Amino acid sequence: MAANDFSEIARQFVEFYYNQFDSDRKGLASLYREQSMLTFESGSVLGAGPIVEKLSSLPFEKVKHQVSTLDSQPTVEGGILILITGALLVDEEQRPMNFTQAFQLMRDPSGGYFVFNDIFKLIFG
Amino acid sequence: MAANDFSEIARQFVEFYYNQFDSDRKGLASLYREQSMLTFESGSVLGAGPIVEKLSSLPFEKVKHQVSTLDSQPTVEGGILILITGALLVDEEQRPMNFTQAFQLMRDPSGGYFVFNDIFKLIFG
Repeated sequence: MAANDFSEIARQFVEFYYNQFDSDRKGLASLYREQSMLTFESGSVLGAGPIVEKLSSLPFEKVKHQVSTLDSQPTVEGGILILITGALLVDEEQRPMNFTQAFQLMRDPSGGYFVFNDIFKLIFG
Repeated sequence: MAANDFSEIARQFVEFYYNQFDSDRKGLASLYREQSMLTFESGSVLGAGPIVEKLSSLPFEKVKHQVSTLDSQPTVEGGILILITGALLVDEEQRPMNFTQAFQLMRDPSGGYFVFNDIFKLIFG
């Protein structure tokens, strides 16, 4: 995989992220850094520790993300912006909820990617 | 307005952007630069000229964006990431379509903001 193939990196990131989220949210910690920010619905938290604490505290046991669309663009400093739309199934609920989520990945000094920005919103109506 | 008040800048940008879009799309040209990228549904274009050409060619006369949610985060180099969910009414259609849109604003040397990234998606289902 060429390092500059942002759309392929975005696709692999999203597949990894939701598989990890849906199996063990605590395992997402390695994707965030101290300067990472998560906005989940209306609340924002800063830093890998608080972000994973927030994600782990969400009031459901079982969760499954289904990705409907995935778009990405290159950003500054080698970053990648990703916009996802999809559906979320939690616990025994039969009706999926629509969601949208934006990620900005940035590179750390080793060349790996981490989540700099993460905004998650449920869609009503 | 403090220059670092990213959420207030985001709010003002979104209000200006959709007012301009809904009254005269060609007037959006000043918000984009040569390195700006637009993804509109599944197609991407690069640069202020092609972006405004794309937006101007969309097959509707009347359009009204209604913003439901607006969230923003600071990004690298003084940028701002904005995620919007809302509804779109076009021409004489009575049923709004749901959409989500992500913008990344960056600063140009004069200190003003321009749109570096723009991803627009309709939401089905």
